[in-house]
Amino acid sequence: MISAEVGIRVRYQETDQMGVVYHGNYFTWFEAARIELLDQLGCPYRELEKSGYLLPVLHCEAKFKSPAHFDDRLTVLVRIKEPPTAKVKIEYQVFRSGELLCSGNSTHAFIDPKGKLIRPPAVFLEKTKGFSALQETGG
Amino acid sequence: MISAEVGIRVRYQETDQMGVVYHGNYFTWFEAARIELLDQLGCPYRELEKSGYLLPVLHCEAKFKSPAHFDDRLTVLVRIKEPPTAKVKIEYQVFRSGELLCSGNSTHAFIDPKGKLIRPPAVFLEKTKGFSALQETGG
Amino acid sequence: MISAEVGIRVRYQETDQMGVVYHGNYFTWFEAARIELLDQLGCPYRELEKSGYLLPVLHCEAKFKSPAHFDDRLTVLVRIKEPPTAKVKIEYQVFRSGELLCSGNSTHAFIDPKGKLIRPPAVFLEKTKGFSALQETGG
Amino acid sequence: MISAEVGIRVRYQETDQMGVVYHGNYFTWFEAARIELLDQLGCPYRELEKSGYLLPVLHCEAKFKSPAHFDDRLTVLVRIKEPPTAKVKIEYQVFRSGELLCSGNSTHAFIDPKGKLIRPPAVFLEKTKGFSALQETGG
Repeated sequence: MISAEVGIRVRYQETDQMGVVYHGNYFTWFEAARIELLDQLGCPYRELEKSGYLLPVLHCEAKFKSPAHFDDRLTVLVRIKEPPTAKVKIEYQVFRSGELLCSGNSTHAFIDPKGKLIRPPAVFLEKTKGFSALQETGG
Repeated sequence: MISAEVGIRVRYQETDQMGVVYHGNYFTWFEAARIELLDQLGCPYRELEKSGYLLPVLHCEAKFKSPAHFDDRLTVLVRIKEPPTAKVKIEYQVFRSGELLCSGNSTHAFIDPKGKLIRPPAVFLEKTKGFSALQETGG
Repeated sequence: MISAEVGIRVRYQETDQMGVVYHGNYFTWFEAARIELLDQLGCPYRELEKSGYLLPVLHCEAKFKSPAHFDDRLTVLVRIKEPPTAKVKIEYQVFRSGELLCSGNSTHAFIDPKGKLIRPPAVFLEKTKGFSALQETGG
Repeated sequence: MISAEVGIRVRYQETDQMGVVYHGNYFTWFEAARIELLDQLGCPYRELEKSGYLLPVLHCEAKFKSPAHFDDRLTVLVRIKEPPTAKVKIEYQVFRSGELLCSGNSTHAFIDPKGKLIRPPAVFLEKTKGFSALQETGG
């Protein structure tokens, strides 16, 4: 398993008139966590795009247990649990002081700028190969 | 089945640097369609909130088949397929000229302003009872 | 003077916990009105970009008189009052049932994809030349 | 003069298809900086709202010199230059590695939840009185 986490301070702009964070905004926080994970894997998304890789969302999902509020300090935990194949599934959990507020996931494909499915970049495969081996030894 | 549809013209603000609509924005379009559906059921969300009903999102999900672009004229079809119980599941499809770009769903509960689960309003139940009966007779 | 208008139905996503529309969202509505104006001038922004013209914002401003609320049906009036030179200033007014809620403006330059200032496209100049002549005759 | 600063890492969601940050999003960053400034003044906005103070935007403005891009690490400097009267004017500058990308300002009033103009809270006045005195002695 590969994981990372990112801190989020809830913006006023992210709230709605129910007095809580609008549900669609969690996907932006998932994105922030995903970007952090790619950084830690040594393949920052900014560099990936410059090298001709795009990582569009094929599917995304979120389950809400308890609302987040303005000015909350949250932690978004992000994980890749299964070694990627042609697709990568990424999982997220949003916590406030240890309380789970939301869990979700997104599934992505690697495509080139013309929209064609392509093999993930070498550095990404290498990192996830290591991860895969780790799993096999019971990690 | 109860259904409605709403037209969306894609805003520049809704695009991202991949040149397509950012995935999180589809949930805002789902919201627009949901609001339209509630209008047609005779219980506009604006009135629901004034009467003390909130309809938070418990779960939401979207599957992306093909990207939407700036200035596209889209149609969002919204449906309630199963008679609501304590929860309401609402389904969405986003089309451009008949082509399905995205499908998704959201599940909601009725709560009061203090966050307590409550029985849906009478007008909503009445409409969905009719719908339920319709289903039974094979509609 | 060249003008157009566009209807906006306020989305729940556009509200904040103050129970009104978040101020930054008016700039997205201004954009919708600007796109409509360009359509009516015969040079849709979508086509402009395809032809290698970008229209970035150099300055933008909004003055708020009264808040907009969820589900409000608004009209955004957009006008070009002065014939464009190297820059184009566009003005906006947001109304609800005749009441002015917000006025604002944005100033844009035409640039090419590399960021270099360029002469506006011929169709745009032609339209605004006509407009300029109209002004001179007291229109 | 009272000042603070906040770091921003540009989100993918904040970009548009021009490959830069959508102009309206700077107002959200201004908000983040304003929240930080209020924290440092000892009157966090979260607490202000709980005490019955709202701080709506009466006017806001931004001037763009150079675009921000995805994943940029920015600094937003926020300042109150003039002692507040009934209104508070707040100024912002967005920097990337020392380069000024954008400057702007927002003007706010203190109102109660019913929308009536009210005197700013004591702690806020006290801090800005000190600031005012400092100015008078040439600080």
